[in-house]
Amino acid sequence: MAFSDELRELAARVSNWGRWGDDDQLGCGNFLTPESARRGAACVRSGERVSLALPLRADGVQVGQPAGRYNPILTFTSLNERDRFAPGIWEGTDDLVTMSTAAGTHIDCLSHMGYEDQLYGGRSQSGSVRAGTGATWCGAEQLPAVATRGILLDIPAALGVDRLDAGHAVTADQLDAALSATGLIVESGDVMCIRTGDVQWYLEGDRQRYAVGQDWLVTGIGVGCIEWFHRREVAGVFCDTYAYEVMPPESGNWDDLCAVHMIQLRDMGLLQGQNWNFETLAQRCSADGHADFLLVAVPEPIVGATSAPVAPVALR
Amino acid sequence: MAFSDELRELAARVSNWGRWGDDDQLGCGNFLTPESARRGAACVRSGERVSLALPLRADGVQVGQPAGRYNPILTFTSLNERDRFAPGIWEGTDDLVTMSTAAGTHIDCLSHMGYEDQLYGGRSQSGSVRAGTGATWCGAEQLPAVATRGILLDIPAALGVDRLDAGHAVTADQLDAALSATGLIVESGDVMCIRTGDVQWYLEGDRQRYAVGQDWLVTGIGVGCIEWFHRREVAGVFCDTYAYEVMPPESGNWDDLCAVHMIQLRDMGLLQGQNWNFETLAQRCSADGHADFLLVAVPEPIVGATSAPVAPVALR
Amino acid sequence: MAFSDELRELAARVSNWGRWGDDDQLGCGNFLTPESARRGAACVRSGERVSLALPLRADGVQVGQPAGRYNPILTFTSLNERDRFAPGIWEGTDDLVTMSTAAGTHIDCLSHMGYEDQLYGGRSQSGSVRAGTGATWCGAEQLPAVATRGILLDIPAALGVDRLDAGHAVTADQLDAALSATGLIVESGDVMCIRTGDVQWYLEGDRQRYAVGQDWLVTGIGVGCIEWFHRREVAGVFCDTYAYEVMPPESGNWDDLCAVHMIQLRDMGLLQGQNWNFETLAQRCSADGHADFLLVAVPEPIVGATSAPVAPVALR
Amino acid sequence: MAFSDELRELAARVSNWGRWGDDDQLGCGNFLTPESARRGAACVRSGERVSLALPLRADGVQVGQPAGRYNPILTFTSLNERDRFAPGIWEGTDDLVTMSTAAGTHIDCLSHMGYEDQLYGGRSQSGSVRAGTGATWCGAEQLPAVATRGILLDIPAALGVDRLDAGHAVTADQLDAALSATGLIVESGDVMCIRTGDVQWYLEGDRQRYAVGQDWLVTGIGVGCIEWFHRREVAGVFCDTYAYEVMPPESGNWDDLCAVHMIQLRDMGLLQGQNWNFETLAQRCSADGHADFLLVAVPEPIVGATSAPVAPVALR
Repeated sequence: MAFSDELRELAARVSNWGRWGDDDQLGCGNFLTPESARRGAACVRSGERVSLALPLRADGVQVGQPAGRYNPILTFTSLNERDRFAPGIWEGTDDLVTMSTAAGTHIDCLSHMGYEDQLYGGRSQSGSVRAGTGATWCGAEQLPAVATRGILLDIPAALGVDRLDAGHAVTADQLDAALSATGLIVESGDVMCIRTGDVQWYLEGDRQRYAVGQDWLVTGIGVGCIEWFHRREVAGVFCDTYAYEVMPPESGNWDDLCAVHMIQLRDMGLLQGQNWNFETLAQRCSADGHADFLLVAVPEPIVGATSAPVAPVALR
Repeated sequence: MAFSDELRELAARVSNWGRWGDDDQLGCGNFLTPESARRGAACVRSGERVSLALPLRADGVQVGQPAGRYNPILTFTSLNERDRFAPGIWEGTDDLVTMSTAAGTHIDCLSHMGYEDQLYGGRSQSGSVRAGTGATWCGAEQLPAVATRGILLDIPAALGVDRLDAGHAVTADQLDAALSATGLIVESGDVMCIRTGDVQWYLEGDRQRYAVGQDWLVTGIGVGCIEWFHRREVAGVFCDTYAYEVMPPESGNWDDLCAVHMIQLRDMGLLQGQNWNFETLAQRCSADGHADFLLVAVPEPIVGATSAPVAPVALR
Repeated sequence: MAFSDELRELAARVSNWGRWGDDDQLGCGNFLTPESARRGAACVRSGERVSLALPLRADGVQVGQPAGRYNPILTFTSLNERDRFAPGIWEGTDDLVTMSTAAGTHIDCLSHMGYEDQLYGGRSQSGSVRAGTGATWCGAEQLPAVATRGILLDIPAALGVDRLDAGHAVTADQLDAALSATGLIVESGDVMCIRTGDVQWYLEGDRQRYAVGQDWLVTGIGVGCIEWFHRREVAGVFCDTYAYEVMPPESGNWDDLCAVHMIQLRDMGLLQGQNWNFETLAQRCSADGHADFLLVAVPEPIVGATSAPVAPVALR
Repeated sequence: MAFSDELRELAARVSNWGRWGDDDQLGCGNFLTPESARRGAACVRSGERVSLALPLRADGVQVGQPAGRYNPILTFTSLNERDRFAPGIWEGTDDLVTMSTAAGTHIDCLSHMGYEDQLYGGRSQSGSVRAGTGATWCGAEQLPAVATRGILLDIPAALGVDRLDAGHAVTADQLDAALSATGLIVESGDVMCIRTGDVQWYLEGDRQRYAVGQDWLVTGIGVGCIEWFHRREVAGVFCDTYAYEVMPPESGNWDDLCAVHMIQLRDMGLLQGQNWNFETLAQRCSADGHADFLLVAVPEPIVGATSAPVAPVALR
C-alpha cells in the first residue's frame, strides 16, 4: 500500500495547511472575496440564467456502483389533504426525500476524504467524522456560498471532439488550450467549470456508461491539473463527470486511486464538485464567445454532512 | 365550509391563469427576465455574500406540528472507509439524508396547495399530484432559478420594534412603510424579502415559539398584501417565519385558514418561501443604507416534489 | 374498464363482509382461534425451527419494478461510538433502516388494495387510507398474530417438477393434489403455505426473473383457488413468489389484473403474503413426511401501514 | 476511564467465548434446541396468543434521548393508485418506513456493543462493524429464531408493588423471589421475560418518563443478575424498559455505565431485548397461575444491522 513519492511531493507543494490559520475550514474558499464576487457580477451581460444542476430523480445518476449511494426516494406524508381536524377548503401536499448527499449535482466537503487519518488542516479524520455527530470539522455547513467569476473550460471543444474518450485524463496542457480559447486570464478566486462532455451519456439515457465508464475506463481530471489550479488560486473546480477524476490512475498504479480527491480535498482544501451539467452553458458560451459568467452555487448547509447537494446557476 | 366572497373576489382579481398560456408552470416566475437579472446584478456593490439559509439539522425548525414534517436525519453509508476491495490509502465518507422537502429554508412549489381540486392554471389537483409519480404539474423541477433584484422589507424596523408580536398580520400599509424606508421602487420581477424578526425565536433556541407561535397566534403575511404583490408584478415573496401567513385568519373565520397560501399559489402562481433568515441581511442593509441586492435562490430540482429546499444568497 | 361478471359473482360468493360485524378488521384472521393455535402447537414434533423469511438486504427482491418498492437501505447513526460526553469504556452502534414495508417477506394488510373505492367491510378506500394518517382501517397494527397450524402445499412436488413454469396459474385441482399428498384435511383456521419454487430464482441470483417473471409471464395463484380457500375457512395463504398471483390474468383480459388480490383482500378479508421462502421447509417436510407444523408469523405492527414485514417460522 | 476489577472478573466468569467454537455467532442462542422448543410448545394450554410488541408509531418510545434513535416515519410511494398505465379497476397503496432498528420492541444483536475493540468471540469491533457493510460479525441476520419456553418473572408482583421505582436495580434475589412465585425451575434454553412495569409510563402517555426515567434514575437489570442468567443457561432475557439496565450504575461509578450490556452481549453472548410489553401477559399469567408459555420471537433479518425489530408473541 503506497502513495508514490511523486504524489507526496505534489501534495506537499500544493498544501494550504496553515495558510489561513490553524482553525481554517474554508480552504481555497478563502479565495472567494468581495473582489471575486464583483468580478463575477461584472460578467452578467444579457442576464441569462443557465442552470447547471441535474434534476434529482429516482432514476438519477446512481446505479449502485459504488454501493451506498442512493438516488432520491420521494415519498409523501400528506397528499392533497388537510389535517383531519383543520378547517377550511385548502388541500396540501407534504413530501419527504431520502437521498445520498452526493446523489446528484453536489460539492464535496473537505471532510469527504483523507488519508493517513488526516483531513484538511491536519485534523484527525477518525476523530472529526463520526456517525453520531457527523463531521465536526469541515461539514457541509462550513462550505462557503460560491458567488464568483466562473470560467468554462471546454476540453472537448479545445480538442475538436464532441466528448472525451473513456479513460481520458485531462492534462494541464489541455487546460491551457481550453483557457487559451476563452481569451481569459484566471484570477485568484475564480472557479473552473471543466467540461468533458461525459454527462451526455447520462442525458442520453446510458446511466451505466456515465457512472462507471467503459470497461472500467473513467474520464476525468488528471493529477497534472492539480498544480495548475493551485498556482492560479482557483477557489473551486467543478466537473460534468460522475467520478471527478480519471480512473484507473494515470500512473497505472492502483494504489494511487483517488489521488486527485485526496490531494485537492486534504492537502489543498479545494472546492470540488461532480455531476454538474455544462451542456447548455457550453452552447451559450460558444454562441456569444463569452466563457465567463457569475457562478452562484450555495451548498445545502446540512450540518455534519460530508457532501452537499447544490443547484448551481450561471448568470451571463 | 366556506371561502368568503371577499376572498373569492380577491382570488379572481389576482389570478394569473392563462396569462402565460395554458401550459405555463412558472406563474410569477415569468417575471424573472434577463432584465430583472441584470437589475439584480447591478446591485452588487461591495461583493459581500450574505447567506439567507438556516442550517439543516436534526434539531431544526420542525417540532412535530404540523405532523408529517421532519427535520433532516443524517446517516452514514460509509465512514472513513474504502470499499473493502479497493486499493490505495484513501478513506472516505458517504452520507444519506432523510428530510421533508419543507424541513428548513424552502420554496413552495405551485403544486403544494390548492382548493376545490384545482392547482395553478386550473389543473386538477388530485389528477396532478399522486404518490406514485409525485407532482406531474408544477413539481420542484419546474421552479425557476431565482436570480433577480431582491428588496428587503424590514417591517419591524419600519414599525420601530425589534420583532413583530405574536399574531401580527403584515398589511399593505406596512409594506408601503417599509418600502418607503428603502427609497426604492418595486419593478416587475423583483422579489420581496419580508422580515418579521420571527426567526429570532428559533435562533435564540425557542423552537416551539417559532414554529407554532404563542397561544396559537402566529405572525405572518396578511391577505391585504396579496394584491400589493400582484400589482407590482413581484416574482416571489420570501419570509422569515415558519407558517408564512398570519394565523388565525384575520377575518376571524377559521374557514379562511391558509387563504394567503391558496390564493398566492393557486390563483396567482407566486413563488413563496419560508424559514428564510434575514437577520444578518437586515444588519448589513441598515448599516450601509442599501436594501436592494442580487438575490440568487435555486431550488433543488427534486422531480415531483411539492416543496424544494433552497440555500439563498444575497449579493450586495 | 371492467371486472368480469364471473369475477364479480365469485367476489360475492366469497365475501365475508359483515360476517364478524361491521367493525371487523380481522377478516379471515377471525378463524385464528385458541383451538387452531392448539392444533398448531400439537404439530411440534422434533422441535425444529425453520425460518421462512428472506434476509432483508440492499440487493433484495426489489428490482425497481413495480416502481416505488425499495429494498432496505441500512445506514448508521452511531458506529462503535459512545456519546461524546458519556463515561465508560463501552462502544456501541445504532442503525436506521429505510425500506418498503413490502420490501421482503411480508403480509398484505387488508388496506393494501381495493376497488370501486371500497376496502374490506365496505369502508371507503379513499377515506380510510390517507398519507397523513396512514390507513385508519385495517392498518398493519390490526393484523393478528398468526400462530396456528400451517400446511405446506408443494405444488411442483405434486406435479413432479422442480419448480413451476413462468406464467403457471395454480389451480384448485392442483391444491387438491398437493393436499392429498400430505394426507391432511384442512380445518378452519389453518394457513396454507403454497410452494411454487419460484423463490429459487432469487436464491440462485436471478433477481429479475424472480420479480418480473419471463417475458411478462408470472407464476402464481389463480382465481380458481379463491373459493377453495374460502370453503375451507383458511385464515391465510402465503406464497414463495414476488407477485402472489398469476399474470397476465388467466382470462386473458388485462382488465382482470390483480383479481386475486382484490377479491381476497377486499371481499374475503384473507391474510396473504409474499416472498416467503419454503425451500428448506419443503425439504424437511419431504424428509419426514409431515407437511403440517406450527406456523408463527407476527407482522411488525407499524401503525397505519398497508403491508407489514414479517419473519415467519415453522416449528415442526 | 475504567471498568472495575469486580466487573472484569464477572465478565471472565460468564464468558462464553470459544464455548461453541471460534466461529460461533449465536452465543446463548445455542441453548435454543429442539428440546427447548418442545418444552415451550408443551406450555400451550388454552391456545391464547398474547402479543408482546409495542405498536410502531411516529410518537413511539423514542424521544430524542439518546440522539440518533428515531421513531418510525411512515410515508407513501403510492396511495390508492394504479400504475398510470396499468389496466383494471384495482387501486393499491405502497408505503415505506424509515426507523431505527432499535426504534421499538427489539432484540440487540451481539454486534450492538462491545469494549476494548472486541465483540463476542473476541472479534475486532472496529473491523467487524463498518458503515459500508454493516456488521459482518453477529449482524441481525445471524440472530436465531427464538421459539422456546418463556417464563415471566414479575418483579413488582413479587415485591408487592405495581411497578418498580425510578432507579430500581433488579437483583438476583428478586429474580429468585419472582421465580419462586411461579413454581417453575429454569432449564437450559428457557428465556426470561423480566417485568418491571416501567412500560406503563409509556402506555399512559408519559414518553419522557419511560425513556429517560426520573431525574436520570432509570429502572432496570442490575449486574447481579448476569451470573444468575449464566448459571441457568438461559438463551435470552427481555425487558419492558427502554434502557434495559439500571442507570446510574449501581457501583455509583459512571465509568461502569452499560456494564450489563457489555458483559451480556460481548462476553456472554446473551440475547437481550427492550421495549417489550408484558402488561397483558402478566394479567393472564396471574389469572390462571401459569407463568410459562411458548415464546416465539423472530428478529427481522436485516443483513448487517446491530439491532433487530421483533414482534414477539406468547402462546399460552
